[in-house]
Amino acid sequence: MFVPSVNVAARATQHSEPATGQYARQQRWPCRSAKAAGRARMVCRGSGSEKSASDDASVGERLRARLQRTDIAQGATVYLVGTGPGDPELLTLKAVRLMQHADVILYDRLVSREILEFVNPNARMVYVGKQKGMHTRTQEEIHDLLRMYASDPEHKVIVRLKGGDPYVFGRGGEEAEFLRALGIRVQAVPGITSAAGIGAHLGIPLTHRGIAQGCRFVTGHLKEGLEEALAGLRGGSVNASETLVIYMGLGASAELSHLLVEHGLSPETPVAAVERGTTPEQRVVFCTIHELEQRIQRAALESPTLILVGDVVALSPGWALRHQTVVCADELEMVGLVNEDTQPVTAKAVLMRVTPRKDQIAL
Amino acid sequence: MFVPSVNVAARATQHSEPATGQYARQQRWPCRSAKAAGRARMVCRGSGSEKSASDDASVGERLRARLQRTDIAQGATVYLVGTGPGDPELLTLKAVRLMQHADVILYDRLVSREILEFVNPNARMVYVGKQKGMHTRTQEEIHDLLRMYASDPEHKVIVRLKGGDPYVFGRGGEEAEFLRALGIRVQAVPGITSAAGIGAHLGIPLTHRGIAQGCRFVTGHLKEGLEEALAGLRGGSVNASETLVIYMGLGASAELSHLLVEHGLSPETPVAAVERGTTPEQRVVFCTIHELEQRIQRAALESPTLILVGDVVALSPGWALRHQTVVCADELEMVGLVNEDTQPVTAKAVLMRVTPRKDQIAL
Repeated sequence: MFVPSVNVAARATQHSEPATGQYARQQRWPCRSAKAAGRARMVCRGSGSEKSASDDASVGERLRARLQRTDIAQGATVYLVGTGPGDPELLTLKAVRLMQHADVILYDRLVSREILEFVNPNARMVYVGKQKGMHTRTQEEIHDLLRMYASDPEHKVIVRLKGGDPYVFGRGGEEAEFLRALGIRVQAVPGITSAAGIGAHLGIPLTHRGIAQGCRFVTGHLKEGLEEALAGLRGGSVNASETLVIYMGLGASAELSHLLVEHGLSPETPVAAVERGTTPEQRVVFCTIHELEQRIQRAALESPTLILVGDVVALSPGWALRHQTVVCADELEMVGLVNEDTQPVTAKAVLMRVTPRKDQIAL
Repeated sequence: MFVPSVNVAARATQHSEPATGQYARQQRWPCRSAKAAGRARMVCRGSGSEKSASDDASVGERLRARLQRTDIAQGATVYLVGTGPGDPELLTLKAVRLMQHADVILYDRLVSREILEFVNPNARMVYVGKQKGMHTRTQEEIHDLLRMYASDPEHKVIVRLKGGDPYVFGRGGEEAEFLRALGIRVQAVPGITSAAGIGAHLGIPLTHRGIAQGCRFVTGHLKEGLEEALAGLRGGSVNASETLVIYMGLGASAELSHLLVEHGLSPETPVAAVERGTTPEQRVVFCTIHELEQRIQRAALESPTLILVGDVVALSPGWALRHQTVVCADELEMVGLVNEDTQPVTAKAVLMRVTPRKDQIAL
């Protein structure tokens, strides 16, 4: 393991094996104390919290000015790091290591505060996501920020954190392409994509012998692309089935239901619509394609919501609860779906230092 | 972090921050010493190393006998844990925690010795994969083993380790279904699936604006299923493209090339065939669909090999090396694809205890 935190490691040695459980029980609440909460608030505030929207609007100009006075440094690498669907325990060792060694972290709204607690406190934190009432960063502005930080000789490890996997609807490919064209080194680090994380959590296998011999991830964001992607669906033959997972499909759910049936799926095909999957705020609607739109409306599901479609959905123990409007975590636990692990340790219980951090905001 | 190893943690505290790098440099080779090598050999030998094939053939009978004298324990949980494509750093924190707390570990040949080094030394290790000249465990035997261990009151945490993701061509769904039907608690833990791990490593985005608006994972193992899955492909329109990833497609590569073109893909579509992706033994063939079969033959690629198909493949910096028969890791580094991280730490450099372990083999 990485032993990233000296004070945590030092305390852990006072306990006999297994240190983790005992240590975590003792440290759990201190780690989530006022200090940590304060830090979390700082993290959440992110970029622009002290500034007005109009201040933020000139970001592009200032970026260009700054770029003109820096050259691209040799040796800096931009890491496009996937952080998984939400549960901090689904971070990879590599993601944690890079977060621990980062000089700069660029992160967006899909990266939770629990995940950000793993970041080296000396890293410069740059929020590049949407904020209510604030200017939204365009992809081009994010590109420019990445270029700017990679060009500063002070920075060797620039980490771009993304929810899920950077190369599965994460636009990581565009960032890599942009940076490589400038001669900036870039490396992607995969993350657990939402389909896999949520499937595992809810007991929905994406492939299953005799039911789903493959799986398909499509975006509901681009409606035209969605329709074309769905054109290959064929109903009727169970063996030919693939599990279909729609990312960002909430806004198009009415059209989606229609398209799925039009392209050959039975209206009775099981569906799970999952808001904030794998997090404590997870909400799930189990239903059929036929019921999807109404059920999503009734539950008032919000983004981010993943939609899983296919007979495999009915393999989830949660399927027994499909007549409830919304299945929250506690209810899933009742049907034995969410097991309390025998060890009370969770990743977030064994956190890094809670010392104040340089919450420097770029621009 | 989990602070799983007391002695590692204790030593780490002797160093100033960042402890990880300095510590790892000092400990790297001791961790890969004769002791570790000996342990690795024991691990690799796995089940049946002291027995003949004929001994192993009666495994089913002995299993049944043993099952008759045990009841299913309350409280035991079987964790179906994905370990990713090969690189130990792609393990999730949850996977490592469960490996650290496991009473029993069942693992197969896709789980490398580097990954097994993360296992709690007191865990009982049970090899359930194929071995040359040995009896191959059937899925039913694996089910029975899982049931047997979950039924033993001595065991609370039974970990079934799988390469990749247990629910993406990992047959985890079948194991979960079997165990749940018996009232045994089961939870899946997702892993980085090969498509995501290899895509990130080689710089091949699975989705990419304007090129691939989705991705599809199919198995080349079931040829009939493959053909049906491919029926939905449509060539011609770039926007309609999906990245296609074929798991276990090596044996069917000739047929695969034929099918892909028949179902509408251009013979010039870029392909990457990747043997042992993300491991130091990785070998890659970049080519077109048209060249695939010949190039696979010439390179004598072996299983496990993943085949990625789509225009996104050409975005990899490695694509520039497509006229080479085989691209090994060093060559990829030459084109800037594989960056040496600025920190010399790798997951396996900060390993667990190397004390002797109970390498008890079931049956």
